[in-house]
Amino acid sequence: MKTEIRIAGSGGQGVVLAGHILGKAAAYDGKKVVQTQSYGAEARGSMAKSEVIISDREIGFPVVTRCDILITMNQEALDRHLKDVKDDGILVIDSTNVKQPERKMKLFKVPATETAEETFGTKVCANMFMLGALAKVTRIVSDASLEKAIVDTMEKQTANMNVQAYRKGKELVQ
Amino acid sequence: MKTEIRIAGSGGQGVVLAGHILGKAAAYDGKKVVQTQSYGAEARGSMAKSEVIISDREIGFPVVTRCDILITMNQEALDRHLKDVKDDGILVIDSTNVKQPERKMKLFKVPATETAEETFGTKVCANMFMLGALAKVTRIVSDASLEKAIVDTMEKQTANMNVQAYRKGKELVQ
Repeated sequence: MKTEIRIAGSGGQGVVLAGHILGKAAAYDGKKVVQTQSYGAEARGSMAKSEVIISDREIGFPVVTRCDILITMNQEALDRHLKDVKDDGILVIDSTNVKQPERKMKLFKVPATETAEETFGTKVCANMFMLGALAKVTRIVSDASLEKAIVDTMEKQTANMNVQAYRKGKELVQ
Repeated sequence: MKTEIRIAGSGGQGVVLAGHILGKAAAYDGKKVVQTQSYGAEARGSMAKSEVIISDREIGFPVVTRCDILITMNQEALDRHLKDVKDDGILVIDSTNVKQPERKMKLFKVPATETAEETFGTKVCANMFMLGALAKVTRIVSDASLEKAIVDTMEKQTANMNVQAYRKGKELVQ
């Protein structure tokens, strides 16, 4: 069993941090994990990308070629990466920023950015809504490990808000 | 110009954090960067590994196969990864934990773990000594960007100690 996940959005939307937390959580679950992020021109301004490969066994080729799961936080990310999703793959979109694609597929929507702003007065935790949505609609990582990974990674002052955002993402996804 | 760097050691020695900071610094310098870390069995207990590829151009194949630079923080990491260093590659070792290999090559030593304990009363910042050593003996990232990446990444309470450790690494390397 190997699951290939790509998280994409704008620089500043926290896709690298989301990938880092997801990878850490899967390691807590006892899985093998490779987590990759791209910086530079792609990450600044327009596009940021983070990839997580989760497996029960050693991961030989640590590059995502076809996504089992794609999480997109802006429209450009969807337009760019949709073609890489497997036929039976899962798409999770931040419906504040991303329009539902025409392609027939397993699609889940969470109004992450708008709800983050309404609930917490900041959109910086929209990425945790996306992880909450992911945790709800798949079983790739355990709830306990994800919450632990958030707490272990964040500074104390912001961990609580991010855990709340994560839980809210689980409620809101549809 | 593409530089492939691998940082390896035990879980808990901060090789993932070091790779993250190095990648961020290179992006500040305007480079393209791919940064990869492995978690799971390899990262817990025995081995942890972090890879950074820095390039002036888009990085097509984001996997380190042969290292331009290898940084090792324990003996097992050296024994395992030395064979992957290019003929003209650079090796940087934490001389507290790693014996100088017999192979003729560009070798730099920094007594990171022991000096961290003596100076700061903790070995958690030994990884920053290694980055200091790297910055001193190569020109792959600028000093200003590395210090900025440390400050931007760390919590306020620990950033200062880590910047000091980074500077000390530059002094101590030989």
